[in-house]
Amino acid sequence: MKIIACGSVPTIMAPEKYFTGRVLQTPIVETEAPARLRALLVAFEPGARTHWHTHPLGQTLHVTSGAGLVQTWDGPVHEIRAGDTISFAPGEKHWHGAGSKTAMTHIAMQEALDGVHAEWLEAVTAAQYGG
Amino acid sequence: MKIIACGSVPTIMAPEKYFTGRVLQTPIVETEAPARLRALLVAFEPGARTHWHTHPLGQTLHVTSGAGLVQTWDGPVHEIRAGDTISFAPGEKHWHGAGSKTAMTHIAMQEALDGVHAEWLEAVTAAQYGG
Repeated sequence: MKIIACGSVPTIMAPEKYFTGRVLQTPIVETEAPARLRALLVAFEPGARTHWHTHPLGQTLHVTSGAGLVQTWDGPVHEIRAGDTISFAPGEKHWHGAGSKTAMTHIAMQEALDGVHAEWLEAVTAAQYGG
Repeated sequence: MKIIACGSVPTIMAPEKYFTGRVLQTPIVETEAPARLRALLVAFEPGARTHWHTHPLGQTLHVTSGAGLVQTWDGPVHEIRAGDTISFAPGEKHWHGAGSKTAMTHIAMQEALDGVHAEWLEAVTAAQYGG
């Protein structure tokens, strides 16, 4: 058993390479094989969002506060709110982020395949984000 | 993509067969193969706890509110608090629950092996719970 006390893991800025705007990430867990779960808390300031990306084994988001947006490739932009859960299928191209005027925080959970949790693609344009 | 809106999934009473005291479970996600993650929100009233159990691929708990207790077989009882994360190794025999006077809620995340998320064992006695 490992207990990671609240406040003992540094929060980092999400890399500009994969995110637009200001995004804070606080790790929750990165399991070791044979397990493959990785979970983290992600806080998006208004307007901030991920780039388009996929996950080899899909992803689950659980919104812990605020209101934001999600979109899959060729689908409409959907609003999400605190308490909502969003699941993406393996390989499903998508993005997620804050609302244009509202911050949003979610827990992100994804499983690694051969050590890879995500494949990062192009940025979400202002036109795409605007819906 | 699947969006499960907050409030659309019923909360259930955790089965007496595997829990002592009053425990509420609200599902977050149950993924389909090739993914294997299951996550749920679990709320324990003061004194309530799981029975002893193991998970074939381990488990991660993230405490979302309150203060509670965890113990591994032959280890001491540890206090846990909001914001803490607790990881159990595959097959590690353990229990988790509320404090004797304080409620505790956590998100539980575990991966299935051949469809099995947990193996349930004997109840935690009052002497064990009391530490």
